[in-house]
Parts: sequence; C-alpha cells; structure tokens
Amino acid sequence: MQAPAISTRFTRIFGCRYPILLPGMSWISNPELVASVSNAGGVGILATGPLTAEETRDSIRKIRSLTDQPFGIGATLLMPGAKENAKVALDEQVPIINVSLGKATWIADGLAQYGGKMIATVTNQKHALGALEAGADALMVTGHEAAAHGGDVTSLVLIPSFRKHFPDTPILAAGGFATGQGLAGALSLGADGVAMGSRMAVTRESPLAEATKLAIVSSDESETLFGSKFDGIPARVLKTPKSQQAMDRRPSFPVVAHRAFQAALKMGIPLWKVLPGLLTQFEKMFIIAQFGAATEAIQAATVNGDLENGVQFVGQCQGLIDDIPMVNDLVQRIVSEARQAHEDQATFYGEDEAMPQNIRSM
Amino acid sequence: MQAPAISTRFTRIFGCRYPILLPGMSWISNPELVASVSNAGGVGILATGPLTAEETRDSIRKIRSLTDQPFGIGATLLMPGAKENAKVALDEQVPIINVSLGKATWIADGLAQYGGKMIATVTNQKHALGALEAGADALMVTGHEAAAHGGDVTSLVLIPSFRKHFPDTPILAAGGFATGQGLAGALSLGADGVAMGSRMAVTRESPLAEATKLAIVSSDESETLFGSKFDGIPARVLKTPKSQQAMDRRPSFPVVAHRAFQAALKMGIPLWKVLPGLLTQFEKMFIIAQFGAATEAIQAATVNGDLENGVQFVGQCQGLIDDIPMVNDLVQRIVSEARQAHEDQATFYGEDEAMPQNIRSM
Repeated sequence: MQAPAISTRFTRIFGCRYPILLPGMSWISNPELVASVSNAGGVGILATGPLTAEETRDSIRKIRSLTDQPFGIGATLLMPGAKENAKVALDEQVPIINVSLGKATWIADGLAQYGGKMIATVTNQKHALGALEAGADALMVTGHEAAAHGGDVTSLVLIPSFRKHFPDTPILAAGGFATGQGLAGALSLGADGVAMGSRMAVTRESPLAEATKLAIVSSDESETLFGSKFDGIPARVLKTPKSQQAMDRRPSFPVVAHRAFQAALKMGIPLWKVLPGLLTQFEKMFIIAQFGAATEAIQAATVNGDLENGVQFVGQCQGLIDDIPMVNDLVQRIVSEARQAHEDQATFYGEDEAMPQNIRSM
Repeated sequence: MQAPAISTRFTRIFGCRYPILLPGMSWISNPELVASVSNAGGVGILATGPLTAEETRDSIRKIRSLTDQPFGIGATLLMPGAKENAKVALDEQVPIINVSLGKATWIADGLAQYGGKMIATVTNQKHALGALEAGADALMVTGHEAAAHGGDVTSLVLIPSFRKHFPDTPILAAGGFATGQGLAGALSLGADGVAMGSRMAVTRESPLAEATKLAIVSSDESETLFGSKFDGIPARVLKTPKSQQAMDRRPSFPVVAHRAFQAALKMGIPLWKVLPGLLTQFEKMFIIAQFGAATEAIQAATVNGDLENGVQFVGQCQGLIDDIPMVNDLVQRIVSEARQAHEDQATFYGEDEAMPQNIRSM
C-alpha cells in the first residue's frame, strides 16, 4: 500500500510518483540504488564519474533490468570521460541526463529527439541562465548545506530567489533535505521537488560502506567541513581528523598531477586525454587534477569505510539522519511526513479569533 | 482590514498576532521601528547595544507611548553595559528580554516575577541547553545565512534538528527569512515563528540610512561576506570593497584596544569597565575589544549610509528584498504569502490518481 502521489511540475514532466531525486554520487548511486529509488516512486540518477563508457552502458542496461520507472545518468562535463558517458546514455535513450559544470546543448538536442529530459545542476543564476539557453528542462539548485559541491548561498534563500527569477522552470532543491518536513518546506519555498543525496546514501540498498553509514548516523549537523582545498572546488565533507588535515592544506601540483594520473588509470581514462590538457589549459586542468587526486581519499571512505585515511562527502543534513532504512520505507515515510507537515499547518491558519492576552497588558 | 491571525505556540505564549519578530539590531531597532512591528502584529525587540541604562529606560517608555502590544529588549550579555540595560528592563517590567552570549538565570527569574518571558538567541545545541537550564521560554535559532552572527549550520538543517532535540520549546527561526513563503517553510520545518532582521531593516519606518537600504535592495543573495576577522565573531556583512578589506585582515591588538576605548567612550561606557577586563580576561576582552572596534564601521554604514568607509551587517535574504514598504503593509503581505503558500501545497497532496506516462515507457 503506497502513500498517494505528490503531484508537482517535476513529477508531471519527469513522470515519477513523488518529487524526490537521488543525485549521482560516485561509488554510491549504482544501478541497484538507482533502481530502488525509481521503483519507490522517486527518480534515481546513476553516477558515471568512475565509469568507462562500456561500464556506463552495462549499468544502464542493468538499471533497465531492475525497473521500468524513469531514471537518469549524471554527467559532470568538466571531467574526462563525461562526454563519452553522455553519448552512451543518448545512444541507449536514457530518460534523463543530469549535467553539471559545462555547456550541454548537444545533450539537450540529443534528448529532445526521443523525448528525454535534461536536468542541469547549478549553484548560481549565471550558470542557470547558461543551462536554460542550452535547453535544460529543470534546474537542480544546490545550496551551501549540500554534500560536496554547493556554493555559498543556502537553500533557504537560493530556492525562492530562483523561483523569482525563473518562474517557468521546474526547480529541484538540493542541499539540506533528509525528511518530509524538509520536502514540505522546499515546496513552500517554491521548489518543485528535492534531491536527497546523503539521506539516500544511508539506506540498506546503498553500497556506501557500512562503517561510513554508521559514522554519518552518529554525527550531528555541525560535524561537517566546507572549503576548497580538498578537491579544488568548494566541497563539504564529514568532519574527521583526516578531512581536517586535507582541508587545511592544498597539495602541490606535482603531487596532484601524479595522483590524477593514477586516478585516471584506475578509472580507465587514457593518459593521452589528461596530458594535453595539463599543457594547454593549465588552470582548468589543475582543478581537474586536484579533483582527480581527491578520488583516492573519497574511494577509501565511500567504498572501504576507511575514515582514518579516507574522506567522505556529506551534507549538513546528516544531523537529521538517524537510521539505515530500506529505500521504499524511507520514501514512504518522507511522503507521509510532508503530508503531515502540511496538515499540521492548517491549524495555524485558522479563522480569526480573539487574541491571547497573557503578556499583552503589561 | 487585517489578515487573520497565524496561531502558533510562539504567538500564544508571547501574546502576538503573527509569529514574526524584529530582532534587536544596533542603530536600527529603535523605539519607532519596535513599536511599528509590534503594532503590525509581530514582536519588536529594542537594540540596547549602543544605549546607556538611562537611554534604555527612555526608549522603553517611548515604545510604551507608541504601542500597547508586546515588545522586548535585547541584551548581548558579553558586552559591557548589557547587564545594566537588562536590569532597567526588569525594573520597567518589559514583557520580553532577548538574551545572547551569556548565562541569564537572574534575568529569567526577574521576568518570572511579573510574567515576562525570556528568548535566548543560540546557534548550537550546547548553548541551547544552557539557555533552557537558565530558564529561557523560547529559543531564537540563528542559521548560517543570517546577518551578523550565525554559525556554520544553515537554518534549513538547524530548525528541524532543534525541533527534534527540543520538542517542547518554541523555536524562532532566524537567518534567511524575508517572505511569507519563508515563514510557511519555517513552520513546515518545525519552527513556531521567524525573526526577520534584514527584511525589517529595509522598511520606511526603519532608521537604517536610505543609501544603505537602497544598496541592500539592489544586491542579490550572493553579495554578502562571512568570516570572523571583522568583529572577532563569525559575521555576515554586505559585500563591498571596504568589507572585503575588513574581512581580509584582523587588526592588531593595539589598534583594536584603541578603537574599543573610543567606541566605549562614544557609547558612554566608562573606561574603568573596559580596562580591568583587558588585564585579567585577555581572550574574552580581545573579542569584546574587536567587537567594539567594529562599531565605528557599522555605525558609518548603518547611521550615515557610508559604504565607502562603513560595513553593513546583512543576511543572504537580501536577494529576496526588492522594495522599501511600510512595516504594516510588509507584515500583511508576508502573512498573505504564507497562507497562499500553504494553500498552493494542497494541490500537491491530492487524492491518488493515474500516474503520468510521458517519459516512463522509454
């Protein structure tokens, strides 16, 4: 017995039952978790960052074997291999492609040919304008409280500001959401749905290492760090002695480059893709290299549960995460909580009545 | 014709019509603005930071001549003169005292003798526990997006976390709120009301300098700075060349001390109150001195509208502030927007229906 649908512009355009999205998180948003979220009535996005084109194709087919519901893949366009993965997704006619950090007109055009939809992840209005020009069907707006790569502005301000500036665009609010109260709050602020990364990562179906799930459950909202020295882009991570150290100093370029090559090798990205960039587009490649260099630490925490040597991306909403439920149970709970939060508010907006007098007359 | 009341635990305990509070902001929350907010159905809090005990007494009497509605005074207990001002407020039987940065059992006890109430401003759970032990009747929970002194955790996460940990305590959400959609969102997240500082500062009745009001109206949500080098405590200010410079470097101790003495003199605080502290409680006094040293810059921006030499505290919600309305019109608009946001959501939670099919079958 499923809770009734929550119907917004997002669910109507993207064909899902509830306005809840699993974003692509490397080594977490795998075919099984994606299918679980889509089967539960949300939308799962496959993380393709660590995947070769062939692995992306296999993963898409795996998802299709597990669900007939809408799903998508993520493409972080700045990163090597992302374009190849997006091409595979278009070839496989994947319903949704979630792009970030790059222009994607060709992806929107490719999607349009078979009725697929593009979601662009953005943190500010300038990038949003670019994404809409490129043909994005919805914006995933990432607030300061988000795991990994949010900007400085918090979701509470970013959502209504985007609603004001882009009234005709479906907006998914990302960053800070882990409960149905949060979903109801996001809808009040003008969002059409929410993305829940950290919350979905701490579920039974999630491949996140058990030790790391438990660390998140036992940490509160103040136990994250935010800064740009970890992977070169402002990022939020779980607070540990190791992450504190990683945030305090930016590694030297040779160290970054060396690790980036290693990471590229591990990810099956040929060195000839990395090297020319290092010589011709230094600043961009430095970011990519630093990003790649962080790979090892993220993988250690996410895949192996090693928080002594690893670093885990997580949002401030970890303070609201207290358990490790099944995805479907979690989605049902969130939907019930949102409905309840809405119903509870009805009592606040009653007909007018005599005012309370307890401290007025002093 | 006033919009119907919004009735929450906050309005019932504090005796107001709408769950909206004007926090005490130095040189802004003066008797006229306080009375305007209280008369509009919210609760105004007088800023006593720049006031001597006698000025506080005069201001309280002035407020009483302008309104018969509930109001309060603010007491930042770390600052010199705050205790004297709180004593005056108790003596005058002010309905509400809003304390911050210090233990206040004696204030709660004093208030209890005549039925007054204490609101404690906090940014984390540890301080909240202390405030509740001291006898606080409500918590004002300040998120990262707030003007001046928020912590690292954003309102979106802080509110539901506090609601979870302190289910029996009325919570006022501060930081990020400027609209009725925000009020509805806060209520969904578990707050009993909101504080709106920046929004109330940009009203016709507000004494904030006109040039600074216009600067806030024309700035967006990304144009603030947050850091601890300005006044010694993590603070959010309007982004200007001057504030960038003030945030980049912490002034030396002699400079801070000299400016603190000057500020103390201007504020009518005798030097004998400042000097012993400098000798016996160095760290605490350094913060106070740096805090005091910032006074000049704040006053220049807030009172004189001088953003070349001055620094203005402001929240990220400035991106949602587009006009300079009368306080009563603003409050009525916020209340209508909140009710509308709630009504709009009803359409999302309809009875179950056939699912949309547009992209499912791919």
